[in-house]
Amino acid sequence: MYRSHNCGELRMEHVGQEVKLSGWVQTSRDFGALTFVDLRDRYGITQLVFNIDDDADLCEKARKLGREFVVAATGLVRERSNKNPNRPTGDIEIEVKSLDILNASKVPPFTIEDDTDGGDELRMKYRYLDLRRGPVQDNIIFRSQVAIETRKYLSDQLFVEVETPVLIKSTPEGARDFVVPSRMNPGQFYALPQSPQTFKQILMVSGFDRYFQIVKCFRDEDLRADRQPEFTQIDCEMAFVTQEDILNTFEGLTKHLFKTLRGIEFGDFPRMSYDEAMTRYGSDKPDIRFGMEFVELNDVAKGKDFAVFNNAELIVGICAEGQADNYSNKDIKKLTEWMQRPQIGAKGLVYVKVQADGTFKSSIGKFYSDEDLKTWADKFGAKPGDMLFILSGETEKTRKQLNELRLEMGRRMGLMKEGDFKPLWVVDFPLLEWDEDLERFHAMHHPFTSPKKEDVERMLSGDHETMKQLRADAYDLVINGVEIGGGSIRIHDRALQEKNFKLLGFTDEEAEAQFGFLMGAFEYGAPPHGGIAFGFDRLCAVMKDVYSIRDFIAFPKNNQGRDMMIDAPSPIAGEQLEELNLQLDLKSEE
Amino acid sequence: MYRSHNCGELRMEHVGQEVKLSGWVQTSRDFGALTFVDLRDRYGITQLVFNIDDDADLCEKARKLGREFVVAATGLVRERSNKNPNRPTGDIEIEVKSLDILNASKVPPFTIEDDTDGGDELRMKYRYLDLRRGPVQDNIIFRSQVAIETRKYLSDQLFVEVETPVLIKSTPEGARDFVVPSRMNPGQFYALPQSPQTFKQILMVSGFDRYFQIVKCFRDEDLRADRQPEFTQIDCEMAFVTQEDILNTFEGLTKHLFKTLRGIEFGDFPRMSYDEAMTRYGSDKPDIRFGMEFVELNDVAKGKDFAVFNNAELIVGICAEGQADNYSNKDIKKLTEWMQRPQIGAKGLVYVKVQADGTFKSSIGKFYSDEDLKTWADKFGAKPGDMLFILSGETEKTRKQLNELRLEMGRRMGLMKEGDFKPLWVVDFPLLEWDEDLERFHAMHHPFTSPKKEDVERMLSGDHETMKQLRADAYDLVINGVEIGGGSIRIHDRALQEKNFKLLGFTDEEAEAQFGFLMGAFEYGAPPHGGIAFGFDRLCAVMKDVYSIRDFIAFPKNNQGRDMMIDAPSPIAGEQLEELNLQLDLKSEE
Repeated sequence: MYRSHNCGELRMEHVGQEVKLSGWVQTSRDFGALTFVDLRDRYGITQLVFNIDDDADLCEKARKLGREFVVAATGLVRERSNKNPNRPTGDIEIEVKSLDILNASKVPPFTIEDDTDGGDELRMKYRYLDLRRGPVQDNIIFRSQVAIETRKYLSDQLFVEVETPVLIKSTPEGARDFVVPSRMNPGQFYALPQSPQTFKQILMVSGFDRYFQIVKCFRDEDLRADRQPEFTQIDCEMAFVTQEDILNTFEGLTKHLFKTLRGIEFGDFPRMSYDEAMTRYGSDKPDIRFGMEFVELNDVAKGKDFAVFNNAELIVGICAEGQADNYSNKDIKKLTEWMQRPQIGAKGLVYVKVQADGTFKSSIGKFYSDEDLKTWADKFGAKPGDMLFILSGETEKTRKQLNELRLEMGRRMGLMKEGDFKPLWVVDFPLLEWDEDLERFHAMHHPFTSPKKEDVERMLSGDHETMKQLRADAYDLVINGVEIGGGSIRIHDRALQEKNFKLLGFTDEEAEAQFGFLMGAFEYGAPPHGGIAFGFDRLCAVMKDVYSIRDFIAFPKNNQGRDMMIDAPSPIAGEQLEELNLQLDLKSEE
Repeated sequence: MYRSHNCGELRMEHVGQEVKLSGWVQTSRDFGALTFVDLRDRYGITQLVFNIDDDADLCEKARKLGREFVVAATGLVRERSNKNPNRPTGDIEIEVKSLDILNASKVPPFTIEDDTDGGDELRMKYRYLDLRRGPVQDNIIFRSQVAIETRKYLSDQLFVEVETPVLIKSTPEGARDFVVPSRMNPGQFYALPQSPQTFKQILMVSGFDRYFQIVKCFRDEDLRADRQPEFTQIDCEMAFVTQEDILNTFEGLTKHLFKTLRGIEFGDFPRMSYDEAMTRYGSDKPDIRFGMEFVELNDVAKGKDFAVFNNAELIVGICAEGQADNYSNKDIKKLTEWMQRPQIGAKGLVYVKVQADGTFKSSIGKFYSDEDLKTWADKFGAKPGDMLFILSGETEKTRKQLNELRLEMGRRMGLMKEGDFKPLWVVDFPLLEWDEDLERFHAMHHPFTSPKKEDVERMLSGDHETMKQLRADAYDLVINGVEIGGGSIRIHDRALQEKNFKLLGFTDEEAEAQFGFLMGAFEYGAPPHGGIAFGFDRLCAVMKDVYSIRDFIAFPKNNQGRDMMIDAPSPIAGEQLEELNLQLDLKSEE
């Protein structure tokens, strides 16, 4: 037996008991006659005391303990003379009678403390040490609690967790698949799922009624910051439901998670159409912790001598409250340059300062009178001291640029408050997106999303322009500007599904080869159904007010898709390739 | 809204209410004035009634419903005149007022009933229809309940569920890995995990203390009957534990699962050493629902004129109670031939019948007197009417053959009773197996298994023969002859791990390249730890007295590793191969 108690549980009521603890040496302090060792495990820290007068050898042994040594100590619990109120075990200490060194430790390459001195690369290589740090362990344990509460809530709602296969079929639609060569079927490959989409729909056809799964998914994408090649979804599907049923169910799940794990209670989540979100915030995932909403100025800003505005499809701005005095010309120049970086690509940035005396200062003052600018300010509801930022150009691009500016101003002005959570349903997404460059439609959500009931006929018989107007029963759950989940009501009719594949550029043969089983299933009594998937890693991060998913993954990969600790991926043996009927075909580096 | 209630919940107390149900048409029966439709969903079946006098059009619509049509029906709950006590909803029926056909269905290729007429291949192709059948749905739901109860039990014991990566590193040890080419790292591959072994050990080094995960694992093996390329494990690891702690914890889990899900309570599980299991049953996973234990006859059967026995390393038999009269010479011949099949490979089969008058009838009667045979029978405790079956030869082979015969006789004699569960811990496995052909050691469990504490010194300093005698803290949980789980105490010391890799034929470079991170981790304060993994698919099957795991997997693959429904694996596009820096290298068929 290595321990009678853990390092977090001893209290005053245990005083006088003989106990055995095991754990890691956090610190060792030598005060001459007394040596104190803080012993750490997952549950807490307990102070061990060694007295040189009681047992000089034992005390000597304790003095030699290095950080991160693993020891087992037996001794008596006693009251501390110098209590530590910041530690749950701070009222007691262990007067050690015997000590076993279970394992030694080299000096760690960085400190195992809440704030460590280790850089990213080093901590990923020695992930086993990084995972010993309190905040990292807390995050991983928090993640497991989110999983527990998710399963509890959904099971109570009669959802059944069903495991879907990981070795499935490659489909060229969407992001790139990871593929797995099949040794038993030479020349053929499995693919790893980007989501269990078709399987969960099949489960609805099979009558499972309410399905969920917390499941690994895979995407072979060029990794942007904070993407992982493998990630986890809370994947859900329901039969005999409308969009309303799904929104209510998963609003319920979200409320349950925040209530049980963060102690936060929400009222009903607001809902906003995609069009409204784009108009008011220039984003389909607006952060509504703060206002600073878009105000369009086409009706008041055109027709003067300012050609840029006159030629613009959209003139739109935001009002940054009380910022007029915070932005010198130099500051404005820097902000303008920030907006002109290629990532954002604004041509310029117009400002209007509302001054204390009711006059205006603006970069375009020579084109507009104070009276003109007063009209603008009134549209924003701007007060003296406020500052307007205005962009113009092609509608979609301008909105995206202004969204970036709004978020940046929100950050600068401290409007994105920690602990403030503002959930929002964005609904009524377009069904299809027209890609001007490729001259084809993309599915805005995915190819299985149903148009709204009232749009079905138009979809089956309408012309090209009609297709652009179709709206889908598709919805996203957004919290603080982060897309947490998204889903849709699905097509459950073969003819409609075929039409959709055709619109998306599939030939009949391609559609049949890739999704024939699903369209076949629709012919044998498929019920109306729909679902949603939550990004589990991201949900955990957002719930903890952290915006990096890597902190919630026990063994994350870096931006090159590498596991730095195990050093994967790696070359494989020639015989392995041969068995798989493959040859490497490495291009020379350019 | 598609329904106010499901098809399994209406009772007498609902009589008079207007309800809406949705589901599948199980049957439709036309009795002239009345048409009855059984409407089915996951929750049950409810009878719908259509009266031609009330609404002729509606009744006509109902008559035309085919099997597996999906409908929504609104109507009044009323008491049935002709109640069906076999159905929870059998007291009521719905007098239908309106009917929506939500989807039609072609005639299914097999009947959607508990006993279907569909063959295996057909049912795998149309898995979405097979999954509608009650028993299949029950199994999948049972599986989800086993997962729920497993998580509940382990969470209550402070285990944390941690997700380990799926894209890991290929290691040539053990079974074949599935590999995943990395596009971003040309010429390099990930591997899919055969188990999260090293990661769970790393988590112990990280101080997680108690880890579990219900996790997909992968093995690219030639598929024997009832193996799947992807399968699920309950994977567990604990720190600061001895074998005793682990056996107690997971005996607790097993008891919890059987109690909550089957209503069966167990006493303490018996334990048996590997050596004892081999001696008494010729198997390391004995089915102890019945006795028929091995009795060795070397001391009484040698030294007569029967050269076969005189030259045998082992003479060993079983006693089949009351079977003497059931086996004619012809039956014995057939049984002997069964034992001589290459799968078993016995040279012959000796029998001794204990006859009612105390005399004996035996295939080797001319070599042994009745007095000799009486001595044998006494060793077996055989009574008149019993029959002895005796094999001889090389010890290990003979035991394996007799194990097959014992199980066959157990089956024939009805000794493997459904609903009778006999768990057993098999312990004290050898650490290493000597492979005569390859002239090298294999790890009996895996390369991370620790020798018993008392064997550590012998392992570090002993000679070749000593290595064969080492025993490990390794254990299997066996229920009814099926290995449900297995695990071990792990090595947590770098020197011992290096020695083990060396014994297993790794060069230092190979060990470092493949497992350097783990040995590195052992240098930074690795605690003593150990664990276990349960075969989740098999556990579910055994708990339901079913011996095929495929029945508990929603989307299983066939013996060629194919998913018949989605038709995977399949060829991929040339561009996909090119992006992965691969070329196909297909050998011509031989």
